[in-house]
Amino acid sequence: MPLADPQPSAPGGFAAKAFAGEVVPFRVVAFREGHDLVGVHLRLTAPDGTETLHRLAPLADGTDGWIAWIALDATGPWSYRFEAFSDDFATWAHAAEVKAEAGVDIAVMSASGSALLSWAAAEADRPTAERKTIRAAAKRLAKPDAATLSAVASDTALSAFFAERPVMTLASSTAPQRILVERERAGVGAWYEFFPRSEGATRRKDGSIAGGTFRSAAKRLPAVAAMGFDVLYLPPIHPIGRTHRKGPNNTLTAGPEDPGSPWAIGAAEGGHDAVHPDLGTLADFRAFVKAARRAGVEVALDLALQASPDHPWVAAHPEWFTTLPDGTIAYAENPPKKYQDIYPLNFDNDPEGLHAEVFRVVEHWIAQGIRIFRVDNPHTKPLRFWEWLIGAVNAKHSDIVFLAEAFTRPAPLRGLAAAGFQQSYTYFTWRNTKEELEEFLGSLATDTADYLRPNLFVNTPDILTEYLQFGGRAAYRVRACIAATAAPLYGVYAGYELFENVARPGSEENIDNEKYEYKLRDWAGAEERGDSLAPLLTTLNRIRRAHPALRQLRNIRFHWSDDDAILVYSKHLDAAFTGTGAHDTILVVANVDPHSVRETTVHLDTTVWGVPLGEDFEVEDLLTGSVWTWSDHNYVRLDAFAEPVHILRVKERS
Amino acid sequence: MPLADPQPSAPGGFAAKAFAGEVVPFRVVAFREGHDLVGVHLRLTAPDGTETLHRLAPLADGTDGWIAWIALDATGPWSYRFEAFSDDFATWAHAAEVKAEAGVDIAVMSASGSALLSWAAAEADRPTAERKTIRAAAKRLAKPDAATLSAVASDTALSAFFAERPVMTLASSTAPQRILVERERAGVGAWYEFFPRSEGATRRKDGSIAGGTFRSAAKRLPAVAAMGFDVLYLPPIHPIGRTHRKGPNNTLTAGPEDPGSPWAIGAAEGGHDAVHPDLGTLADFRAFVKAARRAGVEVALDLALQASPDHPWVAAHPEWFTTLPDGTIAYAENPPKKYQDIYPLNFDNDPEGLHAEVFRVVEHWIAQGIRIFRVDNPHTKPLRFWEWLIGAVNAKHSDIVFLAEAFTRPAPLRGLAAAGFQQSYTYFTWRNTKEELEEFLGSLATDTADYLRPNLFVNTPDILTEYLQFGGRAAYRVRACIAATAAPLYGVYAGYELFENVARPGSEENIDNEKYEYKLRDWAGAEERGDSLAPLLTTLNRIRRAHPALRQLRNIRFHWSDDDAILVYSKHLDAAFTGTGAHDTILVVANVDPHSVRETTVHLDTTVWGVPLGEDFEVEDLLTGSVWTWSDHNYVRLDAFAEPVHILRVKERS
Repeated sequence: MPLADPQPSAPGGFAAKAFAGEVVPFRVVAFREGHDLVGVHLRLTAPDGTETLHRLAPLADGTDGWIAWIALDATGPWSYRFEAFSDDFATWAHAAEVKAEAGVDIAVMSASGSALLSWAAAEADRPTAERKTIRAAAKRLAKPDAATLSAVASDTALSAFFAERPVMTLASSTAPQRILVERERAGVGAWYEFFPRSEGATRRKDGSIAGGTFRSAAKRLPAVAAMGFDVLYLPPIHPIGRTHRKGPNNTLTAGPEDPGSPWAIGAAEGGHDAVHPDLGTLADFRAFVKAARRAGVEVALDLALQASPDHPWVAAHPEWFTTLPDGTIAYAENPPKKYQDIYPLNFDNDPEGLHAEVFRVVEHWIAQGIRIFRVDNPHTKPLRFWEWLIGAVNAKHSDIVFLAEAFTRPAPLRGLAAAGFQQSYTYFTWRNTKEELEEFLGSLATDTADYLRPNLFVNTPDILTEYLQFGGRAAYRVRACIAATAAPLYGVYAGYELFENVARPGSEENIDNEKYEYKLRDWAGAEERGDSLAPLLTTLNRIRRAHPALRQLRNIRFHWSDDDAILVYSKHLDAAFTGTGAHDTILVVANVDPHSVRETTVHLDTTVWGVPLGEDFEVEDLLTGSVWTWSDHNYVRLDAFAEPVHILRVKERS
Repeated sequence: MPLADPQPSAPGGFAAKAFAGEVVPFRVVAFREGHDLVGVHLRLTAPDGTETLHRLAPLADGTDGWIAWIALDATGPWSYRFEAFSDDFATWAHAAEVKAEAGVDIAVMSASGSALLSWAAAEADRPTAERKTIRAAAKRLAKPDAATLSAVASDTALSAFFAERPVMTLASSTAPQRILVERERAGVGAWYEFFPRSEGATRRKDGSIAGGTFRSAAKRLPAVAAMGFDVLYLPPIHPIGRTHRKGPNNTLTAGPEDPGSPWAIGAAEGGHDAVHPDLGTLADFRAFVKAARRAGVEVALDLALQASPDHPWVAAHPEWFTTLPDGTIAYAENPPKKYQDIYPLNFDNDPEGLHAEVFRVVEHWIAQGIRIFRVDNPHTKPLRFWEWLIGAVNAKHSDIVFLAEAFTRPAPLRGLAAAGFQQSYTYFTWRNTKEELEEFLGSLATDTADYLRPNLFVNTPDILTEYLQFGGRAAYRVRACIAATAAPLYGVYAGYELFENVARPGSEENIDNEKYEYKLRDWAGAEERGDSLAPLLTTLNRIRRAHPALRQLRNIRFHWSDDDAILVYSKHLDAAFTGTGAHDTILVVANVDPHSVRETTVHLDTTVWGVPLGEDFEVEDLLTGSVWTWSDHNYVRLDAFAEPVHILRVKERS
């Protein structure tokens, strides 16, 4: 029997991915000739070798698609295969019921049913009680009359037995498929990014700035934890080169007090395995990581594989760089532009040596307590290198997570995800209209969800979109609400909560960028003045923790609204998977035009969460506490300047 | 270097397909890290073992897609693989030009260029003259100045050499892929279907009908050929069962004069290898096939694998059917409906015996001169059976073509095509609006074109759509024009040209269906009265023969019109493939609302056929002879009652 297109799957022969607790759709196309009924099984093998059997349900008529949603709990390598078979009891029962009703072929159908049931009753792997019941049913069919035939064909005990252990003929199977289940944090988490040198930085009396340290930055940890963030990502913490150091706003000449870009890694004080002396010692860093862990926050480090001209690698291993005919080492460039503070690595001259060194660096930080790395510009290094590195690291430490900063074209972005990256930045920042968001978020939840986990950062030190620059505070609110609810991974770079929206003219980057200077921010003052988004972020992270439906990627469904700026989506998780015994359903209605007040009607397919069309149900706005009675057609008014988004909990009917 | 998604490809591990003369897009996704330029080659091996190398061109920016269009001429199994490589000369030349312009790194770029060219000049597989030129260029770079650097980097002779034989590093390759090229008629042809028993049938004085024979039907062959059809398909020509024979309009009781359905195959006179005695003898049939061939028409036979209760197989091989517990043989049924004139075959009891018999039957008709079979209801037989049968027949006779009557769900329809059927009926008859046609025809030309060849029949004895029933003569005109121009295979069932549009009430089938009775038609009278579509069909087939662009499937492009019923598409074939040295471009503008006169503006992407936007060009309507000057925006008026379609030839500028 033909079986095609087994899913989950990843391109390029890689294993599909899931995270612990992810509810995964297992799908396949299966059909057979003629009218006989097909059944499809999933045979799923957990990392400990336990095999379970799951029956698939048919998808929409005519698609020949089959599906089972299953929560994968244990981490490690799983495998699965699908089996399709001719479901002989279901075929007989369907024909018998129809024919009993029509009063035709009673004798023949009784005889064939009796033979089928007698055969099934003899199957050795059936429980004895079940065999007895089946044998009794076979005997009842010995007397052929329409009422008996109909009764046996529709017997719920029998159909339950055969649903579990069908009479299977003409069975066929797919080849075994692989899924790697990684820890929950690989797929779920609220990220916060800050520069430790800015946290606790102070202005001296002479106007110069005393940079923050791990110790001063640690004082900010309780606030990050109180906002509800799970992961704190730090840009590179290593010594920064002095040769061709960049000054404020990426100027070519830095003053003596300018701290330089943390991505220009390496100086006399050390390279990728060292800590910038201004930030403290390695012991200070370990203490910072521990303090974060105590506050419930995991620290993620940057892995930026490039060097400043002052990096110890340059003298010790010139073979790890590209040497030009004149004997100099090649700068990073995009001709005719040159980046003279950066030497890119060359992975071709001494791959073994360079691989070993990168592995050593990663191991070094793992030894300091780091389990998450945010990888800078992975698309400028060979894909095979990442496949090797992530494979090698995870073989030794299966809980290490790598986030790809792959702001690149779709093919390499997907290639990096398939090759092993646990998470990826995406094009989210550049998807702002309702139409763009429906297409983009829908695609993330379906087309690539088997291997690519999007982390919806709302901003980064490199990205301040025009939408945020010109959308006012509403834009910041709307984007945070969507990022926090549309996917289980999202992120915020510090300063977002202060609505920092001034760009370097003509660019999509903050002016006076923190990459090249210290930032002094008055977090508490802004909050006191009501000028901070921290309370909203805190609420969003609380909602995420309370609602398991928001910690899944694949369960987003879009609903219609009559307005082209009112985006509507639901995230629903069946009671079987919530752990509470109740369904969890969140409905997000967002006005994505940050300059308008919009009134419209939203039209919901309430059957997604089990409410028949036309029936009333209660919703509670988790942002405001308002409670309304809704049905499938609802009036909404969303004022960008006051309340641009509803995040509604659909109340379970008692 | 990553290479992904090589195309053409078919699902399920089957070979992709093409027909002799088909212009096939070879595509792959290839990218590398960083800014260095990538090159992609196709290494194509013809059935005779000849290998050719083709350079791919990049697709749209950001897609990392690459393409080469290649006409496959020889029939037989081809193979191909893609090679991606770092294009070192192109990378150097690009950087050198930019840097020469900017006046930076002149010495370094000259030195690296000199080294690269010296290395290339030493490559043994380059022609001597080429090596000499390259060596001279290397020497010129010994003196580093910007003008020389720029001159060498932009030297057209050098770039031509390196386009043909690039300096390749970091090369990688896909696994070999397969394409089966079949004869042209597998993918190109205008089909006509008639029942031989109706052709030449006459009414006797007593009102009864004397059926047609192969001899009388042969008299219709010149008209079929004159209309320009390539293939004449005959419904089953075998003896018809008498038990439970169906009467007119599918009634359960046939009168003694009712001829029965040709699909109820088998009687005392013989089965699938016999000819119905009313039609003549096997010798008459052979003569008919020969006469058709002389007229330039190929005869296609029906292969309907089922039996009437009177079929010789029933007595000789009851194991090829399903025997019920009461000892009777199971009728075809869709409970509670029964088809008592048909016994379906059972492929599971004696597969070897049944396979051998079907193979024998097919061989028998091949021996009578048949090279095309139209297969009835293939989706009711096991997919694996077809895979075996078509494979076995084609292994012995590679020119045999099978058309799948797979009016079934998308998954089995595509499965049958991938498994070997050379052609397939599709959902064309049920795609009638502009939106439906754009989506459907677009998908046929892209998503499935590597393995599924659509035959756009406008009607069949089983299908008379509501669009035709209620659309008047305009509907018949519009559908014929679209079918004949949108795909290289299309078909017409006799009677279409007489606008036979009366259905059995509530059905999508002709009333007084030819399946159950003789049809007497006055072809000549209708044509004389102007009541025949034969002249239009003749014109359409003439246009198809004159325009190679219409004999390709993958070259359809849709253009915008402001009216939601004005469908616009072009079919363009580059001069490299037409054999005439000139481009061939056809533009179809159709009013698909058969009840209206519409005026609108059509907006053309003329760059598809090499005309810059905004430039004028001449078009000639091949249906009327009118000539207009068009540009990218054009007014059209399409009157369903007079002239519902333009088929425009875009004139080449001299």
